[in-house]
Amino acid sequence: MNIGGKAYRTIWVAADGWSVEIIDQTKLPHALQVVALRTLEDAARAIKTMQVRGAPLIGATAAYGVCLALRHDSSEAAFAHALALLAEQRPTAVNLRWALAEMRTAVRNLPPERRVAAAYRRAAEICEEDVETNRQIGINGAKLLHAIAARKPAGERVNILTHCNAGWLACVDRGTALAPIYESWNAGVPLHVWVDETRPRNQGAALSAYELGAHGVPHTIIVDNAGGHLMQRGLVDICFVGADRVTSNGDVANKIGTYLKALAAKDNDVPFYVAVPRATIDWTLSAGTDIPIEERSADEVLIMTGRNRDGQVLSVEIAAAGSPARNDAFDVTPARLVTGLITERGIGPASMEGLVRLYPEGRDSKVC
Amino acid sequence: MNIGGKAYRTIWVAADGWSVEIIDQTKLPHALQVVALRTLEDAARAIKTMQVRGAPLIGATAAYGVCLALRHDSSEAAFAHALALLAEQRPTAVNLRWALAEMRTAVRNLPPERRVAAAYRRAAEICEEDVETNRQIGINGAKLLHAIAARKPAGERVNILTHCNAGWLACVDRGTALAPIYESWNAGVPLHVWVDETRPRNQGAALSAYELGAHGVPHTIIVDNAGGHLMQRGLVDICFVGADRVTSNGDVANKIGTYLKALAAKDNDVPFYVAVPRATIDWTLSAGTDIPIEERSADEVLIMTGRNRDGQVLSVEIAAAGSPARNDAFDVTPARLVTGLITERGIGPASMEGLVRLYPEGRDSKVC
Repeated sequence: MNIGGKAYRTIWVAADGWSVEIIDQTKLPHALQVVALRTLEDAARAIKTMQVRGAPLIGATAAYGVCLALRHDSSEAAFAHALALLAEQRPTAVNLRWALAEMRTAVRNLPPERRVAAAYRRAAEICEEDVETNRQIGINGAKLLHAIAARKPAGERVNILTHCNAGWLACVDRGTALAPIYESWNAGVPLHVWVDETRPRNQGAALSAYELGAHGVPHTIIVDNAGGHLMQRGLVDICFVGADRVTSNGDVANKIGTYLKALAAKDNDVPFYVAVPRATIDWTLSAGTDIPIEERSADEVLIMTGRNRDGQVLSVEIAAAGSPARNDAFDVTPARLVTGLITERGIGPASMEGLVRLYPEGRDSKVC
Repeated sequence: MNIGGKAYRTIWVAADGWSVEIIDQTKLPHALQVVALRTLEDAARAIKTMQVRGAPLIGATAAYGVCLALRHDSSEAAFAHALALLAEQRPTAVNLRWALAEMRTAVRNLPPERRVAAAYRRAAEICEEDVETNRQIGINGAKLLHAIAARKPAGERVNILTHCNAGWLACVDRGTALAPIYESWNAGVPLHVWVDETRPRNQGAALSAYELGAHGVPHTIIVDNAGGHLMQRGLVDICFVGADRVTSNGDVANKIGTYLKALAAKDNDVPFYVAVPRATIDWTLSAGTDIPIEERSADEVLIMTGRNRDGQVLSVEIAAAGSPARNDAFDVTPARLVTGLITERGIGPASMEGLVRLYPEGRDSKVC
């Protein structure tokens, strides 16, 4: 997608043909900085510190992390170490484990001297597949927005609420939850996005607002507390969120607070859709309660970063001094609250039956 | 309550016998500053800018605002102007209108020369009544906490979730939602409070955490997104919140986001109680949908204030530049989600029947 008229992806192989460049998302929205990853450790740190984030992008970065590791040492031991190190950087997004399984399959039976090229090839494919998958998610989800627009008086905007960032910054390009929005907006559907701030890391206010603004999509930032009230007042037509993991029964792990919005959507008869690529489905778990939920640093709650009037980026402590904080990064939305899953294969119910219908091959899948 | 071993109320008449001193709550938790109100306009501004906030304290400040106005000019015209000016500073908390009605009743039939003394007398009574009311709310609500503690293994903590600040800083003293917590804690009940940050103004992280910390009550700050997840995991025994207005059918207007927590409580069978004094009940409205909801400045969403490492207080812009924000300050929790109302008269269901049983005289009440 474009920033200031220039097309970007979130991750790409640099001009040198081997190092990997990313947009450092910890610096957004205050600065657009490209960072080079040159080692396995660089990739692991980028995932851990959330320079890259979003389930699909975590997967893509892990894939390139394997490439960087193998380029340094293509032995079996180094390969195993890379897979293990990358897998432990974030526990919740299953795309990380999916991408590592893909990389293992692509590389493991090759002699060391052929591994590097094969790894870069598969990593590039994973990125291209992500873009194509998201294009299809966009097309499929856009039908929902078109249908709502068709029911409204001509020119009246479709109001979509989204939580966290499941836009192109969360993927290689295009996004999952935001893909249908871009698709519809480009097709001329009048729409407006309510962007949940998404505390504690503010991925909504910092990233979703940034990318929607860069693309010219009308949007308004709201605090995470506000969505239920807006739904009560009839100001939300539909909710679109992404996911970090969907279990085989249709339960959805996503950014903390997703569950609250799904409850409010149910209470107000607002459709609540989760946009996910195949790689986000975990066929090995049968219920969301089994998903490991990452607990992150209390500092993410207690310290806030922003720009002062001179444009300097500063961090300040916002809470009462000495008060502790707890920071669970995700929650689980039960399938019963999900109107449907928007996938690259179409839209289906959030259930085992729905998932098997979309992915008949899926039931036999395993991640590493 | 105590701060650093010194007893404070949130509002009091200064040593000069007429000016009114308040704790400037826009400066907390970073600094404890006492500000003097000397004119009607000072009082109006303190309410508008939220130097004082919390439904009961807004009422008490409005009462003293009338005193300051009459001291300057005790004519009928000045009196009417003061009532009108103060009433329009905040639309949602009904205690403001209640306190002004009380002041009108106390003053209107007196000759101008007797008005000032009568006004100060009634304002002081309103403050004393608030403290006594909250003492009773504390005693009544504490029974719920004692009952939970009695069902737990000895020494295991009762976990209470609260949203916004309905502590002593929201009242003259003691608090509403936090009053039962102080009461139980003082009686030796082991407990722990989950403090919702409460964006956009962070009254949880800034005020509730501050006053709980000052009193030594164990607590943990969480983002507003987290409460549902904690309830799903069995980590919340009960929710206590305050209210800005309760309509005669038991609907509750309170800080934006309260509705989301009430939905999560219902979904997880966690009792959800609203602590309110008589003055928060609006007998003139029969449904929460009729309550005016204040919309405040977008800057409260987009700009965050905190301390840097040197202790300087700074404000920073946290969101994507150019993105607009919307800032509804309250939402309405339908009575069906409220387990009960904790009042100074006891605990009852959130319904017309429940309210009439607690306040048989209430049905005939009117606010100005």
